[in-house]
Amino acid sequence: MVLMRTHIGHSLRGVRISQGRTLREVAKVARVSLGYLSEVERGQKEASSELLNSICAALNISLSTVLAEVAKDIKLLESPVLTVVDTNAA
Amino acid sequence: MVLMRTHIGHSLRGVRISQGRTLREVAKVARVSLGYLSEVERGQKEASSELLNSICAALNISLSTVLAEVAKDIKLLESPVLTVVDTNAA
Repeated sequence: MVLMRTHIGHSLRGVRISQGRTLREVAKVARVSLGYLSEVERGQKEASSELLNSICAALNISLSTVLAEVAKDIKLLESPVLTVVDTNAA
Repeated sequence: MVLMRTHIGHSLRGVRISQGRTLREVAKVARVSLGYLSEVERGQKEASSELLNSICAALNISLSTVLAEVAKDIKLLESPVLTVVDTNAA
């Protein structure tokens, strides 16, 4: 099942890793616990809207950017995969 | 403060209203309580990822479509508002 929290977590984690920052550092700036941030990143916890804002702020990324990426990722998974079979192949 | 749940609720409500459907009807199809759906629509409750999927399915709308609209709405609010002041005005 496609879950929003999985993709939000994946996106946040991707941004953090690309910035070469640790969970501990970002959690401190966002004022959330390291465990909470870790669970959000792994898609094990739904981030509240308020804490999602804090995490985005700590990562210097806009919420709209994260959600646009999440929407794009989910759209790819929602699209039916077409398999072309060449019935004329030898 | 821009909150994701406010915009998700607004988007879901917009879709439901555009379909001419009642809270009761959509809640029944989505298998959520009427009160829960109402609170989600008003941005008073964070929808869990699972129940968000159920509500989207009940509305025959993809989650990616909802999130793309939410991202777009939030982006507009994040953009700085420029006020042009004509200092040459009489």
